[in-house]
Amino acid sequence: MKIKAIFFDIDDTLYDSSQQAKRARKNAIKSMIEAGLDISEDEGVQAINRIVVRLGSNYEYHFDELVKEFGYEGNPRIIAAGIVAYHRTKTTYLVPLHDTIPTLLELKSKGHKIGIITDGRAVKQWEKIIQLGLQHFFDVVVISEQIGKEKPDKEMFENAVKEIGCMAGEAVMVGDRVDKDIAGANAAGMTTVRLLNGKYAGKKPENKLEEPDYVIHCLGEILRILPGI
Amino acid sequence: MKIKAIFFDIDDTLYDSSQQAKRARKNAIKSMIEAGLDISEDEGVQAINRIVVRLGSNYEYHFDELVKEFGYEGNPRIIAAGIVAYHRTKTTYLVPLHDTIPTLLELKSKGHKIGIITDGRAVKQWEKIIQLGLQHFFDVVVISEQIGKEKPDKEMFENAVKEIGCMAGEAVMVGDRVDKDIAGANAAGMTTVRLLNGKYAGKKPENKLEEPDYVIHCLGEILRILPGI
Repeated sequence: MKIKAIFFDIDDTLYDSSQQAKRARKNAIKSMIEAGLDISEDEGVQAINRIVVRLGSNYEYHFDELVKEFGYEGNPRIIAAGIVAYHRTKTTYLVPLHDTIPTLLELKSKGHKIGIITDGRAVKQWEKIIQLGLQHFFDVVVISEQIGKEKPDKEMFENAVKEIGCMAGEAVMVGDRVDKDIAGANAAGMTTVRLLNGKYAGKKPENKLEEPDYVIHCLGEILRILPGI
Repeated sequence: MKIKAIFFDIDDTLYDSSQQAKRARKNAIKSMIEAGLDISEDEGVQAINRIVVRLGSNYEYHFDELVKEFGYEGNPRIIAAGIVAYHRTKTTYLVPLHDTIPTLLELKSKGHKIGIITDGRAVKQWEKIIQLGLQHFFDVVVISEQIGKEKPDKEMFENAVKEIGCMAGEAVMVGDRVDKDIAGANAAGMTTVRLLNGKYAGKKPENKLEEPDYVIHCLGEILRILPGI
């Protein structure tokens, strides 16, 4: 069947979010040390990683929690140093992968529709899309908060396919996570492409649903591997 | 009496916060219009100004409120467009005035202590100081949230003078607001300097306490007008 639409995950698919998070946390800790937090960089990085796991990535006071853990409760200068370095680094790394824009342009010039299927809070995900400069590229953007379901729930994918106006068999999903992107899109009957990138690149599929139809190392490969694209 | 310490307000004294807020709101509205909000720029700017007055500047969902007012409730793309443009513009304008750093350096090289006396949330104010690149300049930073009082309460000023280790008569306060900076510092017995800058530049003193000892048009003038500095 002819391919009509290609959907993408955002994090570690359109940009390097693993690198971004890692560097942002490291630079935050460095700045906090420079502002007077007397700990080693490793201690700090391990602590912030633990705190993010414990309180979730949408919690707004990670650095308040960190200074508290090390006995610097309520030191606004140290907290502020962490926040400023964190956001500066996040912005610096919030750029498309080298072949993101060329690949999207090529797909569009061939008449394909393109879309995004992503988990998260709607405004936050749109902020990323806009900061990446991609807000005018996509025909459809499906965000879990608006659907009330998260990947790998196949409703996310069925919704996206329906909205873009094709059949699941005419749609492709490109993402880095076998347990989220690949499993969900397979369940919905889409063609699946796994991009080996970011912190989940080493994860093996654990069942049939998590097996992608194709594996690529960079986004541009989809132009060569997908039949009839 | 010899001057030993000079204190500064932050907003519209060390950087142009009025310009920053004005431009950030304007650019946010422009981006929201570009993202699909079908209103005029003037309507948008007036609405956002009203919303900030109504909900306070520390409220976190001004743009959600704005889209709701115009019947675009829950459009995450438009909200995100506003947030991204707003923060980008704020960062662009968060730079010291042309003579802020030279003046501070000159005061320090003459052996004076320098400090900040500012209203606001402690972490937020420190974020500004760090983004301005001034975090290593000040001997004392007094922030209302930590004192439990706001300017013009003279406790803010007495606290600062005590912490820096001089008498009120040996200390100078430089700020743009007669009702906050000048009135409070006069009440505490400090020498007062009004900087004519920003949206309060046209405001007349309404009583004796609001009358500054000196009026300047740019920060560097304090080096010339203050006796024995």
